Amino acid sequence: MSAPRTYLDAGGSAPLSQRTREALLAGLADGWADPARLSSEARRARALLEGSREAIADALGAQPAGVHFTASAVLGLERVLAGIWTARRGRDEVLVSAVERDATMHAASFASDKTPREVPVDSLGHVDLAALEEALGEPSVALTAIQHANHELGTVQDLDAVHALTSARGVPLVVDATSSIGHIAAPEAWDALVGNPADWGGPSGLGVVALRPSTRWLPAWPEGDDWAPGGVSVPLALAAAVALQERLENADSEATRLAWLVDMIRERMAAVPGVDVVGDPDKRLPHVVTFSCLYVDGEALLSRLDKKGFAVGSGSACTTSTLEPSRVLAAIGALTHGNVRVALHPGVSEPEIERFIEVSIRAIEELRRESGAPALG
Amino acid sequence: MSAPRTYLDAGGSAPLSQRTREALLAGLADGWADPARLSSEARRARALLEGSREAIADALGAQPAGVHFTASAVLGLERVLAGIWTARRGRDEVLVSAVERDATMHAASFASDKTPREVPVDSLGHVDLAALEEALGEPSVALTAIQHANHELGTVQDLDAVHALTSARGVPLVVDATSSIGHIAAPEAWDALVGNPADWGGPSGLGVVALRPSTRWLPAWPEGDDWAPGGVSVPLALAAAVALQERLENADSEATRLAWLVDMIRERMAAVPGVDVVGDPDKRLPHVVTFSCLYVDGEALLSRLDKKGFAVGSGSACTTSTLEPSRVLAAIGALTHGNVRVALHPGVSEPEIERFIEVSIRAIEELRRESGAPALG
Repeated sequence: MSAPRTYLDAGGSAPLSQRTREALLAGLADGWADPARLSSEARRARALLEGSREAIADALGAQPAGVHFTASAVLGLERVLAGIWTARRGRDEVLVSAVERDATMHAASFASDKTPREVPVDSLGHVDLAALEEALGEPSVALTAIQHANHELGTVQDLDAVHALTSARGVPLVVDATSSIGHIAAPEAWDALVGNPADWGGPSGLGVVALRPSTRWLPAWPEGDDWAPGGVSVPLALAAAVALQERLENADSEATRLAWLVDMIRERMAAVPGVDVVGDPDKRLPHVVTFSCLYVDGEALLSRLDKKGFAVGSGSACTTSTLEPSRVLAAIGALTHGNVRVALHPGVSEPEIERFIEVSIRAIEELRRESGAPALG
Repeated sequence: MSAPRTYLDAGGSAPLSQRTREALLAGLADGWADPARLSSEARRARALLEGSREAIADALGAQPAGVHFTASAVLGLERVLAGIWTARRGRDEVLVSAVERDATMHAASFASDKTPREVPVDSLGHVDLAALEEALGEPSVALTAIQHANHELGTVQDLDAVHALTSARGVPLVVDATSSIGHIAAPEAWDALVGNPADWGGPSGLGVVALRPSTRWLPAWPEGDDWAPGGVSVPLALAAAVALQERLENADSEATRLAWLVDMIRERMAAVPGVDVVGDPDKRLPHVVTFSCLYVDGEALLSRLDKKGFAVGSGSACTTSTLEPSRVLAAIGALTHGNVRVALHPGVSEPEIERFIEVSIRAIEELRRESGAPALG
């Protein structure tokens, strides 16, 4: 008999809703042709693609002409950082917060051919605005990349304050909104924005980049002004637009419910000896929480939770091959091992979370006992 | 009343078969999780992805470990050319045939930061082997990129002869098989191979790169050894594998039938005054044919055929924005305007082709009459 499963690793991937799956099927039926060609079939595909672009632009508060599809959010970050960097010739430094995604760090290093300069964050993960202001004083700064919300901590940045500082220096601000779009209101303060449809309930295989009309960029890739070389999958774009629409329709009530479930996890786990719950308890994503457990091996904890029917994330939440200490947790001075990242999917229920908390507490105790950890609490 | 439609522009995009659509749905149901993570859901997605990789590797005659998914065939060409070029440091020239795709030309220019050196082709589109051998004598040659079959002409290259020449010089051969896989037997003579699932009946949004174990490359992008930054869509990969399987099961009988329909088009259109049918009549793709019409505007012809219910391609068959004279047709010394590219889908019937030929001949005559073209024939 297989145990019932509860999926609590919904940051960046989740099952499609019925409505999103139907949109994808409609896209396969009517949008299979190459939208760049001349036939009636191609025009129909093009209309679906443009409709999807408009719907997403509307949700992001962007102009449709400034919204580009890419093959993934990671490729979106790669291209937007390289494109803006190239247009800022003469300046070669990229400023990032210390809690950006690996994808942002890699893209920034590659575009500028040097390690990006990290602006520190406080213990909740908020960018140090004074340090940012000081760093922006350097004339070598080409651009700044700062996330809207952190995928591990849940902490939401004060982008209005950040953008006020970057604008004052005429430095473009690229906002990684790959963990926030569809969960909280889209940010307004940005020069470029990157979103991840797979994180808002859409399919994987697609990214979204939005640019303000005033944001200058130059192609830093072989295909000229084409952000998605080889074209975009129209069915994926349509499904992404419908998924976002669905999320926004239910955003307020779902956010309140998920935030309440996360509060429950935060409170109950923080009461366990040697467990740290990280990130801002208030200015945060409604559905994400990470806790770190002293004297517990992260992979063993994940594996035990998985056997008990709970899928959660860990580490930098990225790959099986690199269960490395989390850079994000190190940046805020938290325990970098033995951590569990929970990202709630809209369908999750209170009893599931109740059970998750109980099972987690038991698993932590068991693992500590098995490894002969010192007594805590 | 809308006319019945016949889709004759199936190079690179076509409706999914029932079986491929079902595979995609199965992939959405069981492969929605991020295959790079640690949970049971992730492991299930990973198993589907690896199964898809193995099936495609088998069809390509490649090792699964050497098969990489990319977000599109264009991105596959971009990365494989840049990766191999980077590993060949000290040599900076890319040799290409004069009839390669724009994507290959752009990727080669970008990787090497100079215009690739073109090896001429004969009037049927075959690479001039003597010229290739001479060009390979230059010690500056980093790599050679030559297609398996041309997407406009249908002409299939003698890759055994090409590879014998490149191997003798120790120069890696990248083969663009984006028009041939699933239509004719996969080539055996290559060091790297690029395939396009959307061309073999799979979904768009995916590319495939195969490398021999001996082929050296270095990452020339931000994400290290990751060929698909941000990951691969497992449902798309599964659908691509199933589509290829389906094509291969019916390959022999379908190829014979489509080749016979193309022969019909070739013969009947060649008999029209001022119409040139291009490409090798024998060593060719079974399903592709292009003809050029003197004194006819290509876009007007496409538009008229579209109104009569036939979707065909033209020009470099790429974009609505650039209905430019075809580089491929120029390279073989053919008429570069007023051309129609036909790419047959497995489902197409003989009566449809009969009607297409009649409608095309009538449209060409009408357009010439309307523009006051001189009498021909």
